[in-house]
Amino acid sequence: MTHSTPQTVMVAAHTKHGTVVYANDFKFDLYPTLGDKPNFRRLAELGEEGITALIVDSTYAKDHRKMPSESVARELLKDVLLGTNSSGKAVILTTFSSHIARLKSIVELGRKMGRKVIFLGRSLSKYVDAAEEVGLAKFSGQVEAVKFSKNIKRRLKKLMDEGTEKYLLVVTGHQGEPKAVLSKMASQDFGFRFSYEDHVVFSCTVIPTPTNRMNRERLEAAIKASGARIFRDIHVSGHAAREDIRDLINFLKPENIIPAHGDTGMTSALCELAEEMGYKANKTVHILRNGNLFKL
Amino acid sequence: MTHSTPQTVMVAAHTKHGTVVYANDFKFDLYPTLGDKPNFRRLAELGEEGITALIVDSTYAKDHRKMPSESVARELLKDVLLGTNSSGKAVILTTFSSHIARLKSIVELGRKMGRKVIFLGRSLSKYVDAAEEVGLAKFSGQVEAVKFSKNIKRRLKKLMDEGTEKYLLVVTGHQGEPKAVLSKMASQDFGFRFSYEDHVVFSCTVIPTPTNRMNRERLEAAIKASGARIFRDIHVSGHAAREDIRDLINFLKPENIIPAHGDTGMTSALCELAEEMGYKANKTVHILRNGNLFKL
Amino acid sequence: MTHSTPQTVMVAAHTKHGTVVYANDFKFDLYPTLGDKPNFRRLAELGEEGITALIVDSTYAKDHRKMPSESVARELLKDVLLGTNSSGKAVILTTFSSHIARLKSIVELGRKMGRKVIFLGRSLSKYVDAAEEVGLAKFSGQVEAVKFSKNIKRRLKKLMDEGTEKYLLVVTGHQGEPKAVLSKMASQDFGFRFSYEDHVVFSCTVIPTPTNRMNRERLEAAIKASGARIFRDIHVSGHAAREDIRDLINFLKPENIIPAHGDTGMTSALCELAEEMGYKANKTVHILRNGNLFKL
Amino acid sequence: MTHSTPQTVMVAAHTKHGTVVYANDFKFDLYPTLGDKPNFRRLAELGEEGITALIVDSTYAKDHRKMPSESVARELLKDVLLGTNSSGKAVILTTFSSHIARLKSIVELGRKMGRKVIFLGRSLSKYVDAAEEVGLAKFSGQVEAVKFSKNIKRRLKKLMDEGTEKYLLVVTGHQGEPKAVLSKMASQDFGFRFSYEDHVVFSCTVIPTPTNRMNRERLEAAIKASGARIFRDIHVSGHAAREDIRDLINFLKPENIIPAHGDTGMTSALCELAEEMGYKANKTVHILRNGNLFKL
Repeated sequence: MTHSTPQTVMVAAHTKHGTVVYANDFKFDLYPTLGDKPNFRRLAELGEEGITALIVDSTYAKDHRKMPSESVARELLKDVLLGTNSSGKAVILTTFSSHIARLKSIVELGRKMGRKVIFLGRSLSKYVDAAEEVGLAKFSGQVEAVKFSKNIKRRLKKLMDEGTEKYLLVVTGHQGEPKAVLSKMASQDFGFRFSYEDHVVFSCTVIPTPTNRMNRERLEAAIKASGARIFRDIHVSGHAAREDIRDLINFLKPENIIPAHGDTGMTSALCELAEEMGYKANKTVHILRNGNLFKL
Repeated sequence: MTHSTPQTVMVAAHTKHGTVVYANDFKFDLYPTLGDKPNFRRLAELGEEGITALIVDSTYAKDHRKMPSESVARELLKDVLLGTNSSGKAVILTTFSSHIARLKSIVELGRKMGRKVIFLGRSLSKYVDAAEEVGLAKFSGQVEAVKFSKNIKRRLKKLMDEGTEKYLLVVTGHQGEPKAVLSKMASQDFGFRFSYEDHVVFSCTVIPTPTNRMNRERLEAAIKASGARIFRDIHVSGHAAREDIRDLINFLKPENIIPAHGDTGMTSALCELAEEMGYKANKTVHILRNGNLFKL
Repeated sequence: MTHSTPQTVMVAAHTKHGTVVYANDFKFDLYPTLGDKPNFRRLAELGEEGITALIVDSTYAKDHRKMPSESVARELLKDVLLGTNSSGKAVILTTFSSHIARLKSIVELGRKMGRKVIFLGRSLSKYVDAAEEVGLAKFSGQVEAVKFSKNIKRRLKKLMDEGTEKYLLVVTGHQGEPKAVLSKMASQDFGFRFSYEDHVVFSCTVIPTPTNRMNRERLEAAIKASGARIFRDIHVSGHAAREDIRDLINFLKPENIIPAHGDTGMTSALCELAEEMGYKANKTVHILRNGNLFKL
Repeated sequence: MTHSTPQTVMVAAHTKHGTVVYANDFKFDLYPTLGDKPNFRRLAELGEEGITALIVDSTYAKDHRKMPSESVARELLKDVLLGTNSSGKAVILTTFSSHIARLKSIVELGRKMGRKVIFLGRSLSKYVDAAEEVGLAKFSGQVEAVKFSKNIKRRLKKLMDEGTEKYLLVVTGHQGEPKAVLSKMASQDFGFRFSYEDHVVFSCTVIPTPTNRMNRERLEAAIKASGARIFRDIHVSGHAAREDIRDLINFLKPENIIPAHGDTGMTSALCELAEEMGYKANKTVHILRNGNLFKL
C-alpha cells in the first residue's frame, strides 16, 4: 500500500468467522515516487470474497478530495529548490526521517542544484541505513551522513569554511523539537550561523498540538531574527482523504465499518461518508473508543 | 510576467522624476505550462537603473513560501483525473474561464483519459476564442464549445443518451453562481441528472466572501444529494506569496514600497516583510487607501 | 426548567420498563428574570428512584463552563442601553420574539431610559399576546405593538416626525432575514432612514449557517453605510453548557445517556463528558442519529 | 478613567503647540464596582478647547460593541460561585493579581458562600497590600494572605485537614505559568490534591500567545485528570471596544488620531473606525510603529 513510509501493508485477517481488514496508514497513489502502486486487483478480489469488517484511517475523512500523489510533493520541492534563486546562500531542508521517498527526491534535486547533500542528525541515519539495508533505496555514495552532536558541530564548522552555498543540508527537527539539529543550528549551539537570506525549507506540516505550535513558533522566530528565509508546507500527506476512503469502501464492500486513527471529529466524518454510501450508524458503521471490545 | 491569465505584464512608468513599477497580478513561476518564464534579467536591469517606487501585490504576503508553479496544478489535475477510477462515470470540471494555461492542461489530460472534451458556458468560449485568435493556444478541433443555455440543454440531453462516461465536461460556475452552468446542472434546470458517483472537480478555491460561501455550500449540497463525488481545491494561485515578493524587492531595490491589492491585514503583512528587509514604515514603505494621493 | 422560552419542562416518561428523561432545551439558572428556578429537589428524587435513560441537549457540551444566568443578559442590556450616550438618537433593538424574559427586561430598561417602547413586527405580537393571555407577563399598557407592514410604515413615518429619540424600537429580524422589519428599515422600504449614530442593538448571536452569515453581513453593511452604530452579541444562550449538563447527570445518575440536539462534534463532546464521569461509550453512552431505534 | 486596574488616568499633555491626549488602558464603564465613573464632563471640555492628537488603545477596535461593565463580571462570578452546587467541594479561583475591583467582588461573594477567603501567591499580596495602603480597598481582616511557597505548602496541608469545603482559595497562575500556585497545586508540588468535582474557576481569558496556550492546555489537562471541574472565561476585559472608542473620539474631536496598543490588525481596525467618522488615512489618522517619530 502507498503511504509516507515504505513497505506499508493493509492487513486482511482471515478467520473462520469472516475476514477483517485493518487499513490505517495508507493513501491511494497511482504515481508513487518509490515502490509500487497499490494492488487494486487484490482489493477487488477481497471484496468479492466478502469482508466482515473494515477498520479504516479517518485522519482526513473531512477533506473532500483525493490525497494528492507523492509526485505532487516532488514537484513542489523541485519548484522551491530549483525555481528560486539560492546562489551564494545555504539551503537547509527538514522533513520526516522515515519518509524515504521524500528523501530520495531531495537527494536527486540536490544533485540537479549542483550541491553536495549532507544528512545531519541521528534519526535520519537510522532510517536511511535501514532502507538501504533492505534494498529500498541507495543513499551511500550520494549522501554524507553525520549522526552525533560532536561530529555535526565539527562538520558544520568545516562547511562554513568551505562555503555553505555548496551544500544542501537535510536536518532533523521539522516540528521545532528543541534538541533536534535545526533548533540547535538556530540557537547557534553548533557554532553555525545563518547568513542573510539563507533558505530554510520545511517539507512537512505542523502536527497541531500546543507543544509543536510553540516549538515551531520559537524556531521560526529565531530563524527569522537571523535574516534567513522560510519556505513552509512543501508537503503532501501520506493519509487517505475522503475520496480515497470511498474508493477503498467500494473495492471491499465490507459488511461493517469501524472508523479509526482519529479524534471524534475525524471518526464522525468517516461515519457520515459511510452513511452517504448506505451504511447505518450503530448498525453497520460503529464509532468505538480505544479499549472498546466490539462483537460482530 | 507569469500569472493565472496569459500576457500579464509588469509596468514600469519612466518619468522625469523617476521610475514607478506597478506589480499587481504576478507570481514568479520558472516552470510555467504556457508562455515564457519571467524576465529576471530585465528586472535586475531596472534595479540597476534605480526605482523610485514599487506598487506591489500583497494578496499572499502573509504566506511564508513561494507560490507553487502552475506545473504543480497540472500534476494535481493529472492525479485527480488519471489517478482515480472514473470508468463508467461522468467527469465534470469547473475552473476560471480566463485561466488559459489551466484549460490547456485540462484538454491534454482529457485526451489521455480517452474522453471528448466539451466546454459549456458563455464565458469559457469568450476567453478561449480570444486566446486562439491571438495565437496563444489552440482549442478548436480539440474541444467542442457550447455557449447558450438552449444549446447547452440540447447538448446535455444528447450526451446523456450517448453515455456521459465518454466526456470530460468543463463548465462555468466554480464559485457556485446560481445562473452558471454547474448550478443549473445540479438543480436539473438543464434536464441533466448526476448519476451515483459521477466526479465533480473544483479546480479553484472559494473566494472568501459570504455570498460565495453560501452559493458554494448550496451547490455542493445539491451535488452531494445526487450522490456525485466532489474533489475540491485542485488549484494553485496566480498571486505571489511572501518569498516571490521578497525576490521582486531584491531585484528592483526600490526607494519606496506601496503595498496594494489587499485588505489591511494583507498590506500590513507586506509592510512587515519590507521592514524585515530594512525599509521603514511611513518613511520608505507606505500603506495607502484607495483614493489617497501620495507625493514622493 | 429555565430556558430562553417560558414554561419549559423536562419530561420524565415513567414506563413499566423504567423511566426515560427527555432534557433538550434547558439551562440551570438560579437567578432567572422571569419564572421559577429549576426544581432541583424533584431532579434529585428522580435520581433516587432510578433513571433508565437520559436524552440530553449537547449544544454547548464543548463549552467548559456553566451557561450564565439570564440576569447576566439583563446586566449586559442595562450597560448598553443606560451606560452609553444615546440622547438625540434612535435606539433600535432586535431579539428572539419568543424570549419573553428578555423582552420584559427590555421594556423595564426602556422605561428607565425615559423612552416609549414600540414592538414592530408580527411575530413579536404573536408571542407577547400569548404570554399575556396565560398570565406570564404584562406588556399591554406599557408597549405599543404594530403588526403589519402597512401599519409599521405609517407608524415609522409618524415617529420620525415626533422625534425618534423618544422611542425604543424593538423589531424583528435579528438574523438579517430580508423580509423582517430591521432589514426593511435598513433598505428604506419603510420610508425610515437611520440618522448618523443611531444605535442598533443585536440582543442575539448569529446562528452559524451560511445563509444567516450572508444575511447578517448584508444587513450590517446597510446599517453601517447609513452611519448608525452597531452593538452586537448582547446575549446569553438558553442552552446548558458542559457544567450544567454535569450537574444534571449528577442529579439523575441515569443508567444510559443519549446525547441529542447537536451535530456530531457536539454529541461527541457530551460523550466525552459522560466518559469523564465513568460512563462507557457504546455501553452506557450512545451516539445515535435521527431515525435510529435504540433498544435498551 | 475606568480600567481593570484602579487609579487609571488618561493623560492630556498641554503644550504650546497644542494638546496631545494619551488614552491607552481604559474603557467607559458607568457601573464600576470600585472607584468613580469616567469624568465625561472633563473630556467634553477638552474637546471644546481643541485636541491636536489622540493616541488611543486599539486592542478591541474590531469588536463591534461597548465593552461590558465590570458589574457584568461581578454578575458572572455570582452566577458561577453562588449559582452552582459546590457543597463539600473545594473552590479555587484564579484572576489577575492587579485587578483590585475583581478581587473585592470575589471576597464579597466568598462571604456570601459562607467560606473563608485565602489568597495564595506573592503577587496577590503585593497588589492587595498596595491597594490597602493607599486606601482603595480593605482586605485585611477579611482575607488571609500567604505569600511564600513554604508557607503555602504548610497552609494547604492544614486546610486539607480542616476540610477544603470551608474555603474559597484565590491563587496566582491564570495563564498556566508553570511556577505559579495553581500549576504547582495541579502537579501536586504542594502536597495538595484536587478531589473529585472540586471547582476551578478561571476569571480571565487566555492571552493568545503560543506559550500561554501550551501552559494552559497542560494545566487544564492536569486539573481534569484529577477529576476537578473547570469554569472558564468568567471575565470582562478592561479595554475599550469599538463603541467606547467612538464615544471618546466624539468627546475629544481630535485633529489627528494615532492608533496604539495593538498589532497591525487592531490598529487597522481603529483606522477604519476613524475613517467611518470622517478622518482620512495618512492625513488625519496615522498608523505608526514603535520607534517612529511623527511630526504634526
